[in-house]
Amino acid sequence: MLYIIGLGLGDEKDITLRGLEAVKKCEKVYIEAYTSLLSFGLSSNGLSTLEELYGKMITLADREMVEERADVIISEARDFDVAFLVVGDPFGATTHTDLVVRAKQSGINVKVVHNASVMNAIGLCGLQLYRYGETVSVPFFTETWRPDSFYEKIQRNRTLGLHTLCLLDIRVKEPSLASLCRGRKQYEPPRYMTISTAIEQLLEVEQARGAFAYGEDTTCVGFARLGSEDQIVVAGSMKQLQAIDFGPPLHCLVIVGKTHPVEDEMLGFLTTKETSDHALQ
Amino acid sequence: MLYIIGLGLGDEKDITLRGLEAVKKCEKVYIEAYTSLLSFGLSSNGLSTLEELYGKMITLADREMVEERADVIISEARDFDVAFLVVGDPFGATTHTDLVVRAKQSGINVKVVHNASVMNAIGLCGLQLYRYGETVSVPFFTETWRPDSFYEKIQRNRTLGLHTLCLLDIRVKEPSLASLCRGRKQYEPPRYMTISTAIEQLLEVEQARGAFAYGEDTTCVGFARLGSEDQIVVAGSMKQLQAIDFGPPLHCLVIVGKTHPVEDEMLGFLTTKETSDHALQ
Repeated sequence: MLYIIGLGLGDEKDITLRGLEAVKKCEKVYIEAYTSLLSFGLSSNGLSTLEELYGKMITLADREMVEERADVIISEARDFDVAFLVVGDPFGATTHTDLVVRAKQSGINVKVVHNASVMNAIGLCGLQLYRYGETVSVPFFTETWRPDSFYEKIQRNRTLGLHTLCLLDIRVKEPSLASLCRGRKQYEPPRYMTISTAIEQLLEVEQARGAFAYGEDTTCVGFARLGSEDQIVVAGSMKQLQAIDFGPPLHCLVIVGKTHPVEDEMLGFLTTKETSDHALQ
Repeated sequence: MLYIIGLGLGDEKDITLRGLEAVKKCEKVYIEAYTSLLSFGLSSNGLSTLEELYGKMITLADREMVEERADVIISEARDFDVAFLVVGDPFGATTHTDLVVRAKQSGINVKVVHNASVMNAIGLCGLQLYRYGETVSVPFFTETWRPDSFYEKIQRNRTLGLHTLCLLDIRVKEPSLASLCRGRKQYEPPRYMTISTAIEQLLEVEQARGAFAYGEDTTCVGFARLGSEDQIVVAGSMKQLQAIDFGPPLHCLVIVGKTHPVEDEMLGFLTTKETSDHALQ
């Protein structure tokens, strides 16, 4: 059996009782390392917090390993119970559909243990989840690569009065260009897009396109470390949020559509006039 | 302090360690009774499974009570720690924004413990969550009340190639018309819309509107008891799904938009040709 277990958003305490029970009975435990493992007590020297809680060794599985060694993981799951741990929900912002497809093709039973993901935890700010349109991703711009397909999607959502969740780029274990040229893989240090960078890029695209999809006065909600003890959630205009230091990653951003009075009231508790102490924690 | 704690979707084992820790330190524990408490071992005689796990009494709070007695709950939270338990995520399909707004207006600290909700757990079927458009609700039609505002939304989502989550009506503790006329409240038995009824209503509206937003051959995914041990997830045409007995509530339905190859592969594992044993469990 292959268990795909969501760990939730904060730290080791966000696993469910069902999830913990499943991990404990698995002989082999993998943890995905390619979204964010920032708050789970994981460091380069080990996975100590989680390993202590589970009472067993954990193998860190980056994207490369999952892609290259999926067959190994699947063949292990044929012989004994294997857990694959995922930050957030197994099918949240990052999906593990490929691994599930390959397991099922091999006739392996897959059991999923759900948990919170950024896709539902943003409900915290008071904007109704059913009033969101299509989610967009904001990738890091480079000098030569400035993809802006998010623009039409945001514009469409705003025309319909819908809110837009912007997932901000994460670059973990990206091979450096120089190392690719040398034919030996070396990795860039991990990079996580801040709310400030995201807004800078959004405004740059608005300026280039000029269709008034949004502007520096558009109300947004910035989330940092959503679901953690030290999360920060602040509502304000793009211009206001751009000036705020939200601290360490992960960040995400919601562009607010048409609001109902109760939504407005909730956003009122999150305005930039308050300090982060007063922000929703 | 007022803790709003998500219980997840399945049963008492779906609470997180963080949630359980919070409940245990609260002096008073409420549980919302107005979405679904079907799988949480709750019956009219009590809340035994949860009460045993938490080691304390739980007060069942229906919508009426939360609306009428919010002040009591909030004033308790001023004096000691109070937990308000919510099936799914606190801000999932049903929101508790009102209670949070009132608590914050009274200067009470609110802490939210997230969990899985139907809004992210549907990711299980392999359709990417960021490819969903606006969520719609399908209400029970009566002879005189047949609201169909979902139609334009589904049409818009499908035009854009997006998937649509349809939340199906839940009627719990609805005062009966007869009792309202008599001036004394009596309640209708609870009603939960099945996938079959939802599809019947959807097709009726398509026939009346005739704009080809969808039809009986449109691919959908039906979910019953999502997140529970006995969940059923089946993909097929509206016509095929309409003929399936999905069993007890809760049900929900996804109308599939434009798919990518990996999404198709996942849906392939969920086709109606297989028995429910082979459906994703």
